[in-house]
Amino acid sequence: MTSNIVLSNVDYDVVGTRPVRPDGVDKVTGRAEYGADIKLTGLLHAKILRSPHAHARIKSIDTSAAEAYPGVFAVVTGKDLPFSSKSKEELGNGWLPLKFKSDNVLATDKVQYKGHAVAAVAAVNPHVAEEATELIKVDYEVLPALTNARDAMKEDAALIHDDRLYTSGLEGKSEKPSNIASHSRFELGDLEEGFAKADVVVEHEFNTKTVHQGYIEPHTATAYWNKDGQLDIWCSTQGPFWVRRDTAELLDHPVSKIKVTPMEIGGGFGGKIPVYLEPVASLLSAKSGHPVKLTMTRAEVFESSGPGAGAWMRVKIGATNDGMLTAMQAEYAFEAGAFPGSPVGAAATCGFSAYDFPNGRTDAYDVVTNKPKTAAYRAPGSPQASFAVETVVDEICEKIGVDPLEFRLKNAARDGTRKIEGPVLRNVTQVECINALMDHDHYKTKLEGKNRGRGVATGFWGNANLQSSATLTVEPDGTISMLEGSVDIGGTRASIAMQAAEALELPYTDIKPTVADTDSVGYTAVTGGSRTAFATGWAAIDAAEDVKRQMIERAAKIWDTDVENVQYSKGVFTHGADPELKMTFKELAGRLIGTGGGVTSAASVEPTGQAVSVGTHIVDVEVDPDTGKVDILRYTAVQDAGKAIHPSYVEGQMQGGVVQGIGWALNEEYYMNDNGQMVNSSLLDYRMPTSLDLPMIDTIIVEQANPGHRYGAKGVGEIPIVPPMAAIANAIYDAVGVRMKVLPMSPGAVLEALWEKNGG
Amino acid sequence: MTSNIVLSNVDYDVVGTRPVRPDGVDKVTGRAEYGADIKLTGLLHAKILRSPHAHARIKSIDTSAAEAYPGVFAVVTGKDLPFSSKSKEELGNGWLPLKFKSDNVLATDKVQYKGHAVAAVAAVNPHVAEEATELIKVDYEVLPALTNARDAMKEDAALIHDDRLYTSGLEGKSEKPSNIASHSRFELGDLEEGFAKADVVVEHEFNTKTVHQGYIEPHTATAYWNKDGQLDIWCSTQGPFWVRRDTAELLDHPVSKIKVTPMEIGGGFGGKIPVYLEPVASLLSAKSGHPVKLTMTRAEVFESSGPGAGAWMRVKIGATNDGMLTAMQAEYAFEAGAFPGSPVGAAATCGFSAYDFPNGRTDAYDVVTNKPKTAAYRAPGSPQASFAVETVVDEICEKIGVDPLEFRLKNAARDGTRKIEGPVLRNVTQVECINALMDHDHYKTKLEGKNRGRGVATGFWGNANLQSSATLTVEPDGTISMLEGSVDIGGTRASIAMQAAEALELPYTDIKPTVADTDSVGYTAVTGGSRTAFATGWAAIDAAEDVKRQMIERAAKIWDTDVENVQYSKGVFTHGADPELKMTFKELAGRLIGTGGGVTSAASVEPTGQAVSVGTHIVDVEVDPDTGKVDILRYTAVQDAGKAIHPSYVEGQMQGGVVQGIGWALNEEYYMNDNGQMVNSSLLDYRMPTSLDLPMIDTIIVEQANPGHRYGAKGVGEIPIVPPMAAIANAIYDAVGVRMKVLPMSPGAVLEALWEKNGG
Repeated sequence: MTSNIVLSNVDYDVVGTRPVRPDGVDKVTGRAEYGADIKLTGLLHAKILRSPHAHARIKSIDTSAAEAYPGVFAVVTGKDLPFSSKSKEELGNGWLPLKFKSDNVLATDKVQYKGHAVAAVAAVNPHVAEEATELIKVDYEVLPALTNARDAMKEDAALIHDDRLYTSGLEGKSEKPSNIASHSRFELGDLEEGFAKADVVVEHEFNTKTVHQGYIEPHTATAYWNKDGQLDIWCSTQGPFWVRRDTAELLDHPVSKIKVTPMEIGGGFGGKIPVYLEPVASLLSAKSGHPVKLTMTRAEVFESSGPGAGAWMRVKIGATNDGMLTAMQAEYAFEAGAFPGSPVGAAATCGFSAYDFPNGRTDAYDVVTNKPKTAAYRAPGSPQASFAVETVVDEICEKIGVDPLEFRLKNAARDGTRKIEGPVLRNVTQVECINALMDHDHYKTKLEGKNRGRGVATGFWGNANLQSSATLTVEPDGTISMLEGSVDIGGTRASIAMQAAEALELPYTDIKPTVADTDSVGYTAVTGGSRTAFATGWAAIDAAEDVKRQMIERAAKIWDTDVENVQYSKGVFTHGADPELKMTFKELAGRLIGTGGGVTSAASVEPTGQAVSVGTHIVDVEVDPDTGKVDILRYTAVQDAGKAIHPSYVEGQMQGGVVQGIGWALNEEYYMNDNGQMVNSSLLDYRMPTSLDLPMIDTIIVEQANPGHRYGAKGVGEIPIVPPMAAIANAIYDAVGVRMKVLPMSPGAVLEALWEKNGG
Repeated sequence: MTSNIVLSNVDYDVVGTRPVRPDGVDKVTGRAEYGADIKLTGLLHAKILRSPHAHARIKSIDTSAAEAYPGVFAVVTGKDLPFSSKSKEELGNGWLPLKFKSDNVLATDKVQYKGHAVAAVAAVNPHVAEEATELIKVDYEVLPALTNARDAMKEDAALIHDDRLYTSGLEGKSEKPSNIASHSRFELGDLEEGFAKADVVVEHEFNTKTVHQGYIEPHTATAYWNKDGQLDIWCSTQGPFWVRRDTAELLDHPVSKIKVTPMEIGGGFGGKIPVYLEPVASLLSAKSGHPVKLTMTRAEVFESSGPGAGAWMRVKIGATNDGMLTAMQAEYAFEAGAFPGSPVGAAATCGFSAYDFPNGRTDAYDVVTNKPKTAAYRAPGSPQASFAVETVVDEICEKIGVDPLEFRLKNAARDGTRKIEGPVLRNVTQVECINALMDHDHYKTKLEGKNRGRGVATGFWGNANLQSSATLTVEPDGTISMLEGSVDIGGTRASIAMQAAEALELPYTDIKPTVADTDSVGYTAVTGGSRTAFATGWAAIDAAEDVKRQMIERAAKIWDTDVENVQYSKGVFTHGADPELKMTFKELAGRLIGTGGGVTSAASVEPTGQAVSVGTHIVDVEVDPDTGKVDILRYTAVQDAGKAIHPSYVEGQMQGGVVQGIGWALNEEYYMNDNGQMVNSSLLDYRMPTSLDLPMIDTIIVEQANPGHRYGAKGVGEIPIVPPMAAIANAIYDAVGVRMKVLPMSPGAVLEALWEKNGG
């Protein structure tokens, strides 16, 4: 791998270095405690009975045999969730959203996907629990299954939800119930005029499949509901405070009676935000009086957690012969899965946002289908849209004979560009990123060889702000204990500690970070939206500044002088009026006890300074025309990282995102049979890329400090998954002349396209 | 029980009420996790090989057979402690103190008490570990054992420490090595003149035995030392930050690499301050690479933890016939046990401090003996001194015919009284307490019946300040999560939460306290010295005030007004300029997310406002002249509590202290054989009082707010153990006419005194 950082112009002592992560040794020695490692006295193990049908009405559930089975302590069904005992009148407009949330945890009247949870059993061990689930008798009335958005959108499609309240057609709310949960449209300029001005117009339809985030650790939750109502939960989650909020809502239980401890996490990528097991384990614990552990199998992870959305898209783009965009139009229909809430909104707002263009329209449809309810998956919504948009842009470039990077540079979004949904872009670095790539060896080196091709694609993502907290305490040896509310998925223990160290002018190794539970640290939103290093870093900086202020006060007290006379720099306190007086941070830390006590500070923040991300990727592929297999020969990703706090972890995010994008591009899909059942729900059959499938991914970090953050940081984790699919599709076209309009571009799909092209 | 509070003159909303404790349900349901409940993957169990001899030279230790034993993972001896590899030159003056600390954890050259730790084994289970300890061959050269201070002080006594550096005679340092670790003298006025002015002088010698705190939960520690040096310890302790400090020192390991998690504690009373098992479990973990658990048996608790000191005392007091003290003199020789550090200093500074007297002298000797190193035991040092002083005072009262309470009232310490070691007393409430008792039914009701007697005694204790920390976070439902650094032994989760609630003007039930580990909260000294409700309460108040300030700022932000326009009272924010604008604390809490993020505050304090404690007790007994058995008929304790934060828990402290005092008075003792071996090291043979032995203890809380604390709080936990022994001795004298000068006043001892009196 070549590691490049361009444009960096500010140097710090700690920020921008590449120290080892504090949790590394724990993870390689097996000391780190993941959710499944939790052991409690009297612990019971639970299993969930799941629907074998993709769509069915539940006529009855008989749990009596399971309840009577030796070793069983508790059995629960959807009727045990508080929602079931609330009336529509009581809940008003909140009824349907709560029904959706509640039903996805344990179904009541219907099952809407294979793997939908129907009942759960807690028993002395997992085997007894599993045996007992098989004794539960569920009488189903099987209904037809709808497994893609276009089928589900049809006028005569069976309704997945009897109680559909959202009814929307193209022109706002419609009276006719449908599986379209919502429709929204954004417009810019005059679309017709835009296409009229175009010398060339390209339009295609695209289809992508349901894919999974593929985190290595299955979902797991252990709950202990005590007699006083105190509910402790240990789980694998990206956001313990959100697990607390959602569990509180689903169980109608106060948040202050719930403590969520986030265990070490084995990946999430957006998929470990929703609650699946936590409320069920909690109900079983309440019923049994014991702590209860629930852990998914890999098949359950695929079939019953929240995958990334499959999509149907139509994109139409017009441009002049001199390479200027005149109009961009897209229709996006995203599969929400069984309950509303696909990421189609982000597709609509990100798909065109790397461009400055005069006229446009997006239509976004959120469509329910008989598949597991989708969850976030890294830059949710943007990769699908980028696949469609960037493929069409590539064809335009081909048709008008403009270099695809030149074209993107000419039409690049820049400061002042208005996004289609309204906001004006600031601190967007599309030009800098494309220039960096055009200046790179990969772009400059010609690709040789038969059936080989090169593609480029660009992508856009808006990063999140949200709330974060950190608490810093000065220890007697001058080190700092740091509690943070953010789960560490991508190395944020390090990147947040680095910001605290920078602010405190101390070495990185003097900061000892700990991810805290919901009772022990201030409110912190989910680790997601590429926000953690930015926002929780902000909280750490705030607390660090307060610690510095307190330490200066203490030095002044010890020296019996005014605070104004004490200076602090690079770990040393000095007395302005008396150059003889001097204390290191460590020396002062050792004197806190006895001069006023310890020094500690807690900070909660809700910053607003995030900046958007852009990235452009270039890839070389070789296509085997006999098998359709695509090999990735070389891959270079460029993106803006603001100031890269820990460049290695930025590069890791870039490489990880690209690898997931390659899997999505070439292999990954939920393969559904006609009954709406996934038939490849194992890591053997669901084909994720391994190191043998991949070259080393080269990265170029373009550093342009984000003015909205003390050290210029911004989100970096999501953008790298956006461009790969289109870049690879464009490379395949360059190699063998076929425009791929489906994902995955599996050997079969490529072969089919080749046959079609060759009239075969 | 009659529950009385007198003198209270400030009413608060929460402070002074009697809510239930937050940890109550956890404790009665078995949900609370004590040290022995910890379960870790790969956990090993360890056992310690202990010396069978009270005093012996270790000639060799052969651990090879134990190491080779199947199932054994690691064996350690004193040589594994870093002290062993450091030279005298390197450590300088620190050498001997570190040798003492280190040797008490694992002996090196000598064993100084039966039960002294010699080696430890970690194995797959406790049984294998125990078997393997029996395979360790130790070659001892047995030496004579010295089991009381007077014997150990003799000029020709064998030296317990070959390397004794402290050598002190009456007049400062002596050149001759001895077992006297230190001697100190305090003087006031002119002793000779004082005795010359006396009409009556009484002088006696007293002996008390080693006693144990008798906490129900044995010591336990689990350690996990990872390859990166991070050492996690879970244990039963009164002070996790002190365990961290001591373990760091003993293992020569940075405090920042050690995290101590205090598990729920089953009593301590001062005995759970020193480290015994933590460094050993840590060494075994470092050697084995596994987490290691060490738990003491009850016999080990008696023989190898730190009991309360046995003492020899001589007290001489002079007074005039009209009941005024002229001189007080005492010599205290306290058994330190195997290593220096008895609480004799507190005996010297507390023994006379309930009195205002013109002339005095105390001599205090800290003497090493071949018994386990003593630890703190509730008001350490003062109960023994009070037993001697108050017995002599009682005899003086008898001789001059003055009511013992009248005498104590006449000579009561008061504001401005100078203590013998120098400081001047402030906020001392001896007069108020004695008046409260003289006004009580117990004092006013005459005791009738043969062999029945009544006694009174008074006592003094100085409470501690030290450092404390608390972190408060506002949760979205308006409740407060509170982290505190203090282990909760006597209900301080409640009493600290109450102070936070009072400061925040919220209900007590809205505060949810959590005892945190050393990485998660600011520096907090030990739960001891009756400091916790006072000092950690102070930290909670400080954090609460900061939370209030931040909440007012947020209300001002939401209302787009200046902070000055926002008022807060009783859980409601109001807008001074616009009476329509109003938000409850809960409403504002629900709006924090989205208006600037959460609100949290951490406070570390080192207050100086503690006040001293006094208490006077009255007891009625009946003595069986045939058996010597003493029954407690009625008992009333009075003490000043400052403002009682939670009166029920103050009463609980008073009753608990009295009960321990009754056990100490009548039954409890380390019964040593001639070889210095304890022969009653079980709870069957070490006779602690049960509920069947006791009447309900009546309490009178005298409330005189401590001006050094926001709500008038001060320490209450230790003073109630000070007066019981003398009060009971005086009651026995009143009943059957014998002056008891030994503890315990067991049936045998009383019978012997009766025989002596009757010339039998």
